[in-house]
This record gives sequence, C-alpha cells and structure tokens, in this order.
Amino acid sequence: MSTRIAWPVPEPELPDGVHGALAAAARAASAAYADARRRFTRLELAEEVADGADGTPTMRVDQLVEDAIAEAAQRSGVNLLSEEVGFLDHGSAVTLVVDPMDGSANAAAGVPLSCFGGVVAIDGTATEALTTWLDTGRAWHAVAGEATSYRTTGRTTLTGAAVSMLRPKRASADAWWRVERAAGRVRILSSTVLEAALVAEGSTDAFCDPGSDTHRIVDLATALVTLPAAGGAVLDVRGRPLELDPDLTRRWSGVIAASRELAEELVDTITREDR
Amino acid sequence: MSTRIAWPVPEPELPDGVHGALAAAARAASAAYADARRRFTRLELAEEVADGADGTPTMRVDQLVEDAIAEAAQRSGVNLLSEEVGFLDHGSAVTLVVDPMDGSANAAAGVPLSCFGGVVAIDGTATEALTTWLDTGRAWHAVAGEATSYRTTGRTTLTGAAVSMLRPKRASADAWWRVERAAGRVRILSSTVLEAALVAEGSTDAFCDPGSDTHRIVDLATALVTLPAAGGAVLDVRGRPLELDPDLTRRWSGVIAASRELAEELVDTITREDR
Repeated sequence: MSTRIAWPVPEPELPDGVHGALAAAARAASAAYADARRRFTRLELAEEVADGADGTPTMRVDQLVEDAIAEAAQRSGVNLLSEEVGFLDHGSAVTLVVDPMDGSANAAAGVPLSCFGGVVAIDGTATEALTTWLDTGRAWHAVAGEATSYRTTGRTTLTGAAVSMLRPKRASADAWWRVERAAGRVRILSSTVLEAALVAEGSTDAFCDPGSDTHRIVDLATALVTLPAAGGAVLDVRGRPLELDPDLTRRWSGVIAASRELAEELVDTITREDR
Repeated sequence: MSTRIAWPVPEPELPDGVHGALAAAARAASAAYADARRRFTRLELAEEVADGADGTPTMRVDQLVEDAIAEAAQRSGVNLLSEEVGFLDHGSAVTLVVDPMDGSANAAAGVPLSCFGGVVAIDGTATEALTTWLDTGRAWHAVAGEATSYRTTGRTTLTGAAVSMLRPKRASADAWWRVERAAGRVRILSSTVLEAALVAEGSTDAFCDPGSDTHRIVDLATALVTLPAAGGAVLDVRGRPLELDPDLTRRWSGVIAASRELAEELVDTITREDR
C-alpha cells in the first residue's frame, strides 16, 4: 500500500523586493504541494492525469501545483508560460515563465528535492528570477544585471570539480561517463532548478544535461537570470540560443557552471566524440 | 575567495523516547555543525586536519562535530565508537556507535544533504537508531524489534525501482552501470545515512555501494536497526556479516532495500560478472 509523505511543506522564505506576481505564484506552489501531500499517497501524486504542453505526461502533483499557480497569475493579472498549460494570455506586458514543480518524480515519491522556479519577463525580456526549495522554504532571488549576495565558486576547470548531472540516458551515456571521469565528484539530485541554485550559491561547481536534450526553457529560465547575476554562466551543449519561447516542444541540453570557462570545458567534454 | 554557507542549521526535531545519550549526541552534532558553518568558509570546513581511525583523512567539519559528540558522550557516561576517534571507553555497558557527519563532502561544500547517524548498543547489541538530517532537523528513530510508523515501499523487484548509489568508482564501474540499466531511476545524493532513511520511509526503493567496499560499520549502523523495523533489509554485496566491530578499518559494500527480495536482486546484479 502506498503511503503519504509525512513531512510538512513550509511557506517559502521570500526576500524583500520579489515581484508581487512572482511571490504570489511561489506561495501558491508551496500551499498546493502541501495540500497535495496531505490528500494523496505517493502513487496518487505520481499518477499520470494528462499530457502537458511540453509533450510529456503530467503527474497529478504537477497538475495540482500548476493549477494553483495559474489561479495566482490570473489574480495578479499577468500572463503565464508554464510546463503543462503552455501560454495563458491575460493581456499583460508581464509574463511569468514558470516551472511549477521541478523534480516532479522526487516530489511525488517524497525525495525532498523539488522546487518552484519562476522568471518575470517584461515584453519578452527576463528581469528577475525566483527559486524556492519546496521542502525547506529556502529561496534564491536574482535581478537581471544586478549582483546577487550569493556567489558561485568561480571554478574555471573541470578537473576536481563537483558536477551534478541528469541521470544517464542511453543516447548520452558516453558523454555522461566522460564528464564523470573528468570531474572530481558527481551527483544526481534529479532537480535541475535546485542543482542550478546550488551552483549559484557556490555549493557545487556545475550542473549539466550531457546531451540528452531533456531541458525545456522552463527548466532553465531561472538559471538564465540567476547564474550570470551570481558570477556563473549557462550554455547549451549544441550552441542553440537559450530564449524564452512559448513553444514548449523545443529542447536544450543545459550546462550551468560557476564560470564561463568551466561551462565551455563541459561543452567540449560532452561533445568531444561528436566532432 | 571561498564563502560561508548562509543557511542556518536547526535543532533536530527528536521524537519522544530517544535514549538520552543518543539524543544528546544528535543535538551536539547539530549545534557544532551550526557553529562551524558560522565560523568557517567552505574551503576551511573541507580542510584535512588529521587522519581518522577509519584510515581516511578527517576534514575540519568532521573533527568539530565529532569533538562535540565525544564531549556529549562523556557527559552522558557512555562509550563511543566513532569514525575519526575510534573507540572511547568510559566503562559503560552502553556504547553509542556514531557517524558524526555522514556526507562530509556535502556538509563542507554546502550541499544540504548530510546527517548525524547513531545507534545505541548495549553489551554489543544494537537496541535503537537515530538519524537526523542536519540541514532540516528531520529525524528518523527506530527501536530494534519494533515496527516503525514509517514503512518502506515494499518493492521486491529491481525493474523500475528507484535506486540511489554511491558515485561510480573505477573498480566497481561495471556493476554501477549494470544497476543503472536495470533500475528505473538512479540518484547520487552522496549521503548513505540520508539515502537509507529515504528507503526506510518509502521515498526511494533502495540504496547501494555497488561493490567498491567504501562503507564502514558506522555508515551502516543506523540502517541495520532502521531498515528491518521499517520492513526493509540490509545486506553486504559479498555476504560478509554486518557487525558492530570497533575495528574501523573493516569495509563493506552495503545494500539497503525496501525488501529482502530487492536487496538480494541487487546483490545478484552487482556480482553477476564475479561468478
């Protein structure tokens, strides 16, 4: 028999100055996830209830959290671009670009590593980003073009680096292994948004999808604002421009690193046998 | 420049009924880690300051937390068996068997996945276990021979299972890859004690060292009490008996699973090419 996740989900500890619509979306995500964990077992949270705008199945936990965010966005009068519903136009110059539940598999199973990630885009340009770690309430805020209080490690070389990766997939297994051999230490936490925050705050050196093209723009949007503001960089393995595009079927292989040099070395290591 | 870890370390949320000496050790661990994060940068926490009784280098963060636990054990009048200091005999029938800081590399870097793990042994027999997750204060308590309130998933087969592993090491890379291919999902959280707690509470199906013989008894002691009490099992890949032995140079490759059947299938998968 499947059980419920016993731990509470706290309210996010938001810093001052977060855009009101973004803060409301983050609070709605935490409240909805808290409610979902009280009402449903792990298996029920993981049940596939629909197909999302990104072309992948939607778990019940994804849907419940995204529904709450969509309601919050409507109340705030802003547009929403999100994983499952796609683009919701409320006629505003402001769009929230949101990953409602990054690390869905973790969130449904009870592995306490899942996040809300959201960006404010004004007329298509990202102006700020917020990441909240749902199980603890920790939050990371960044404003485009302003230095954050937290900083990356600044590491510039892969040898000895602490690198998180997506779990290995068939087509990119060789690249996964090349990065593993070159790095000092690898981890798989299964939450891109959290792993990006750990790079931004200087707890790990890098995170990457080693070429499996799993990332959608909603997975990478917060990192695109947060990493440059914290001293780091974000690249795509195949050099495609990283842009806030409402077409959620587009895919990237994101490389998120403490420095531009480390991001480039990771891209080189991942693509070595492709050249 | 290396930075300090910004997040606070809360007091552990201990359930009623924890042995006084074990509870005091857990509280001392959290307080010492909180103090260490305030005083030292990440690089200073990771600095190797000694060689431990287990034959591996001791980081500053290990030493600070273990020193606090040793003081607590002395105040409680119990013996201590711990990673760095080895066996401290205070002439008691009660011995705490402790991993002061499981996931030291995480703890020093700021990756919020590190634990205190401790067992009460009376005349050599383990009677209860306590795991505390230092960054959140979450605690898992188990009494030998009594069912815990939390339960494993009960999964009996590897196909589709969620399995955490130690990061790949050269000598066990083939086995790591065999488990990865057979499982539904793998993670590397780099904290054996936390990963064991996640198996015990039903958030993941299994955790293993796929044959690298990295585990010391202090890494596995809490799981030896907790998993059977939660419906799961602990085995060594090579069938060696798992026993509370003060010789900390002994090594095991622990397999911690939601059921005996799943633990045995993991052992079979890891050792397949050795037979």
